[in-house]
Amino acid sequence: MPPNSAPTSSWAQALLAPRSIALVGASDDLSKTSARPLQYLRRAGYQGTIYPINPRRPTVLGETAWASLDALPAVPDHAFILTPTDDAIAAAEACARLGIPVATILASNFSEGGDAGLARVEQLKAICAASGLRILGPSSLGAINLHSRTIITANAAFAESDLPRGGIFVASHSGSLLGGLISRGKARNVGFAGLVSVGNEIDLSLGEICAATLDDPNVTGYMLFLESIRRAQDLRDFALAAAERGKPVVAYKLGRSAAAAELALSHTGALAGEDGFAAAFLADCGVARVNNFETLLEALPLLHKLPARAAGQRTKRVGVVTTTGGGAAMVVDELGIRDIEVVKPSHATFDRLGEAGVAAQHERIIDLTLAGTRYEVMKAALQTMLAAPEFDVVVAVTGSSARFQPELAVKPVIDSAGSAKPLVAFVVPEAPDALTMLTQAGVPNFRTPESCADAISAALLRRQPRRELPLQRGPAAATRQLDELEAYRLLDRLGIAHAPAVAIEVGPQAVDLPFAYPVAVKLLSADIAHKTEVGGVVLNVGDEAGVKQAATKIAANVAAHRSGAALAQVLVQPMTSGLGEMLLGYRVDPEAGPIVLLAAGGIFTEIYRDRSIRLAPVDLDGAREMIDELAITRVFRGFRNKPHGDLDALARAIVALSRLAVDDKVHVRDAEINPLIINEVGSGVVAVDALVALADKEDS
Amino acid sequence: MPPNSAPTSSWAQALLAPRSIALVGASDDLSKTSARPLQYLRRAGYQGTIYPINPRRPTVLGETAWASLDALPAVPDHAFILTPTDDAIAAAEACARLGIPVATILASNFSEGGDAGLARVEQLKAICAASGLRILGPSSLGAINLHSRTIITANAAFAESDLPRGGIFVASHSGSLLGGLISRGKARNVGFAGLVSVGNEIDLSLGEICAATLDDPNVTGYMLFLESIRRAQDLRDFALAAAERGKPVVAYKLGRSAAAAELALSHTGALAGEDGFAAAFLADCGVARVNNFETLLEALPLLHKLPARAAGQRTKRVGVVTTTGGGAAMVVDELGIRDIEVVKPSHATFDRLGEAGVAAQHERIIDLTLAGTRYEVMKAALQTMLAAPEFDVVVAVTGSSARFQPELAVKPVIDSAGSAKPLVAFVVPEAPDALTMLTQAGVPNFRTPESCADAISAALLRRQPRRELPLQRGPAAATRQLDELEAYRLLDRLGIAHAPAVAIEVGPQAVDLPFAYPVAVKLLSADIAHKTEVGGVVLNVGDEAGVKQAATKIAANVAAHRSGAALAQVLVQPMTSGLGEMLLGYRVDPEAGPIVLLAAGGIFTEIYRDRSIRLAPVDLDGAREMIDELAITRVFRGFRNKPHGDLDALARAIVALSRLAVDDKVHVRDAEINPLIINEVGSGVVAVDALVALADKEDS
Repeated sequence: MPPNSAPTSSWAQALLAPRSIALVGASDDLSKTSARPLQYLRRAGYQGTIYPINPRRPTVLGETAWASLDALPAVPDHAFILTPTDDAIAAAEACARLGIPVATILASNFSEGGDAGLARVEQLKAICAASGLRILGPSSLGAINLHSRTIITANAAFAESDLPRGGIFVASHSGSLLGGLISRGKARNVGFAGLVSVGNEIDLSLGEICAATLDDPNVTGYMLFLESIRRAQDLRDFALAAAERGKPVVAYKLGRSAAAAELALSHTGALAGEDGFAAAFLADCGVARVNNFETLLEALPLLHKLPARAAGQRTKRVGVVTTTGGGAAMVVDELGIRDIEVVKPSHATFDRLGEAGVAAQHERIIDLTLAGTRYEVMKAALQTMLAAPEFDVVVAVTGSSARFQPELAVKPVIDSAGSAKPLVAFVVPEAPDALTMLTQAGVPNFRTPESCADAISAALLRRQPRRELPLQRGPAAATRQLDELEAYRLLDRLGIAHAPAVAIEVGPQAVDLPFAYPVAVKLLSADIAHKTEVGGVVLNVGDEAGVKQAATKIAANVAAHRSGAALAQVLVQPMTSGLGEMLLGYRVDPEAGPIVLLAAGGIFTEIYRDRSIRLAPVDLDGAREMIDELAITRVFRGFRNKPHGDLDALARAIVALSRLAVDDKVHVRDAEINPLIINEVGSGVVAVDALVALADKEDS
Repeated sequence: MPPNSAPTSSWAQALLAPRSIALVGASDDLSKTSARPLQYLRRAGYQGTIYPINPRRPTVLGETAWASLDALPAVPDHAFILTPTDDAIAAAEACARLGIPVATILASNFSEGGDAGLARVEQLKAICAASGLRILGPSSLGAINLHSRTIITANAAFAESDLPRGGIFVASHSGSLLGGLISRGKARNVGFAGLVSVGNEIDLSLGEICAATLDDPNVTGYMLFLESIRRAQDLRDFALAAAERGKPVVAYKLGRSAAAAELALSHTGALAGEDGFAAAFLADCGVARVNNFETLLEALPLLHKLPARAAGQRTKRVGVVTTTGGGAAMVVDELGIRDIEVVKPSHATFDRLGEAGVAAQHERIIDLTLAGTRYEVMKAALQTMLAAPEFDVVVAVTGSSARFQPELAVKPVIDSAGSAKPLVAFVVPEAPDALTMLTQAGVPNFRTPESCADAISAALLRRQPRRELPLQRGPAAATRQLDELEAYRLLDRLGIAHAPAVAIEVGPQAVDLPFAYPVAVKLLSADIAHKTEVGGVVLNVGDEAGVKQAATKIAANVAAHRSGAALAQVLVQPMTSGLGEMLLGYRVDPEAGPIVLLAAGGIFTEIYRDRSIRLAPVDLDGAREMIDELAITRVFRGFRNKPHGDLDALARAIVALSRLAVDDKVHVRDAEINPLIINEVGSGVVAVDALVALADKEDS
């Protein structure tokens, strides 16, 4: 981003550091939204040329106005189109015709405007394709570069001259949120390099825009406010490049509630829009995801101190030093809710604390109490804890003295900030001066226990991005469902064990099975995915007569369900049981490519949403992490004196299924093994049902 | 609390509005904690007499000091004992001897100080019992009354003269938190009547102290910061009396994390310290519990507007009006996480919005967008939504204009504050002036989406306290375990169905069962609670020989497990299955009396912590609410086309078991039905195992 660096491409310069800006539809009426950009640009001290365009007035807010884009004396770098929806397309056409590199469109009612809106989107795309014009939006509140004083926005929070300049670049699906971030950032001494409201992303995507700023030395880190995962490949490319440059990315994403998830999750297949998928996507991109809005503003300093871990590398161990037991307990509690452990110091650490003159009870947190609220005591405690090998992060929680006597317990935190191990501060009272001091010293600091724990959790869980993932595979137009026997043939090739299975005709023929009774009889059809719901499964059948009876009954059920559809064959399997069962799934998401899913089996997949998702393929480390993320897997670790389950075999099965993402022979869109029986250690895992849908014709 | 009201009792006056205060151990050294109270009292303008006590100096901070309590010219109302632990007891003795009504003890190392500390507690209790002295603490940071300018504290956050006076009374298990609350409150225009650090509560309890302020017209509501439920009867008495007077109580309680819960929950029996129990206790007391620290400061205005609901009365329906879709979506998401539904307006409401000139898409939230950020539009939208019958609460989310142009979208919120239906504001940008305006207008307002949703959830879930609960039954010294057959006899009397069961001798005798095979064979013993873990259960036994074999095997397992203990009898039951199973429990908590617990059955009780707890007894409405709170009960509501379960019978069984709390014939300490089989509608629920422990001898 100029002035300090060359633009990555001309659209990036025109977007974020234009030498001239046309304000199409600029109003002279101060109460109008479209009067704002001119005011904000002037107030911020923008040095380039501004062309207000208004066909009905010779001046706008005292400045010369032009009647149209065509009437301008020169071609501007950037046009901010402030007109209503219907006029915006004509304005974009004019931009294209004149060779303006970038147009930002404020109007809404495009992507979210029903069929008419989508038709307008197609018009805009056609204009871009024909001309080389790049469009930001529509429904964009603008693009702001604080270093070049380019405040191209209609967001009311930018109506001040002393906007907080700094190193953070913000990209947001919500334009109004930019005002929330910059104003709250200012109150926290957080400075911004730029902020972009990406709107509908019909042309310029959030990922592209962020990527264009990666080599700008003014930009040190990124905050993303996301509604969903859109333009996923661009987002991923940007995140990987940011990780390479050591510029951390933190994201807040909407859609975590069960209500939101349930709308999306009818069966495992329907992951589109599902938050668990977005979480997996962001994690595999190396993006730190926070759950509290304020953490979005507060997490970056910690991400700078705590590098992303390699898969399976770092543990999650937090040490706590405090002058207020109650304040520290809030942080411990919030960390516990996020499954982050506050670790009791080792005996050696307690010994060293004693030697350093720190009188502390042998508890999980080092509580210096009111009596220990002194510089030397706090300093010695922090120094000892920061040197102790058992912690990944140390948190200093300071009590009421922070408000008027920061020299007692805040100064020692500042003086310990140089340690190699990250040190984080939570301040219990309202203590703005202490927070400013901490921020200036580079100590990640937090105002609430929730945000403190949220940031620590996001930082400890952040992984290095996975660079080996395949290019995205888009969904194919036509799909074909495999029947269960065909699905087992695919599992055979992948090396995933399944129960023996034979097809028998529905009818009076003799039944000769290659395995012993009791057996399960199931409908065999590529058309009906959910067998149980149509009465297509009979379990615990004890003899040949039972099998015939079951086959007849299933055929009748199917006929009733599908108004006369005839069923020729049923599938017979031995009854199989193990220590428990799980669900293993694979799917190609239309936005972001292949994913693998592990979930608690049976009804618990839906009831408790106990599952883990990763972009596919995964390796054994990744598969083991997925297993660890599920609550249900406690059952397979000697729970209540039961034998251990074969979790190694489960990990291998996860890896095997996930490799469909790089399979050259077959292009699978959806695969679901449910149940996958987990046997005792050494006895493997066994698929007892499988649904597979192909994305196009099988090659082998 | 004087000056405006007579004290409830003389200790209350001496605690919160003393005419004279002795500061025992007051220091002349400004860097010492014990120098603080004198400074803070003077700075606040305390009008009574202060007696600094210091045996080594004639003056303290320029004021005359006395050598000892005995040397004082008059008996003070209140002694704040600032001396170290060992000297504090002697000081308390002196207070008792002189007839000082109240002593507050700062020193720690009493309740939390191991055996020596507990011995000190007993000494203090003996002093109180012998003299009538009331003690606040130990480990109390003091008691503050802002109306009488009595700032008796060593908390550094009180080192300012313009402390925020108002209507809120705070009681806290953590003394340092008082500083966090008053300083953060000041920054939010929240005013306090008083704040008390209750410390160890060895004498004066949190409940007693709060109750003593109930008739003070200065006090309008209560904030509690709790570490656990202590002195439960006092807390409950206070909460019920507060509800009678319409003074809302909001509580933040530590210990929500699974780590904390798991420490407490080994089996269902071990509920002590378990957060689910505390949640049930607070809910049944009519206390609104919040989960975010800042919500503790921000929830009371909403509680004033939204009265506690009667059991089964109010729904949880929220309407949202916004000028920022992204900002509103954060609130919707956070509400969804808390299972609170944001409701789409009805057709009639959309019609009225249209008539009022509000152009809004037919979506769940009324998003006026930037274009609708005008006074008249916002006002009309709010007025229409507040009049619509489908909402219990309306939330106004205002965007960036709130920062510099509150007249656009904040003023209409203020002008709508008079409506009968609660209106709540969340402001997305940093906008301190807008927040102050909202607070002054009495509009509950929030700075984060998390706190906004947390407060709405706490307010909508708050119930009227249950006044019909029995007096607390303490735990009896000796207990006796019933064997399974005895336990079934108790269930018979309560009217809870169980599977048929007979006892048979272990040995060669013929087995003649009153029910058909297959059966379950189980060890029958009052000594071994967890049969499965000692190999005491054999299922699906098909014939007489199998029963004998199973009995022999169980006897051998028991002998192996219990080094030779002989087992005379086993219990035989028909195999029973239904739609699913649950766990139903009852327990007398040593602190707070009887509770009833409903949980997902099998291993899921522990894995997913899916359960509901209430103080016992419950009525049918309460039992139905418990059923609704569990995720697992979806399985019994036609999940995946399965038949519905008999949840009416389940509710009756919950009521029946819970009535052990008022049973005159038997005093049960623990009862657990696990599994309780849930049959189809009309076929009831059936206990298939039961563990019962008596608190004392059975009378019948």
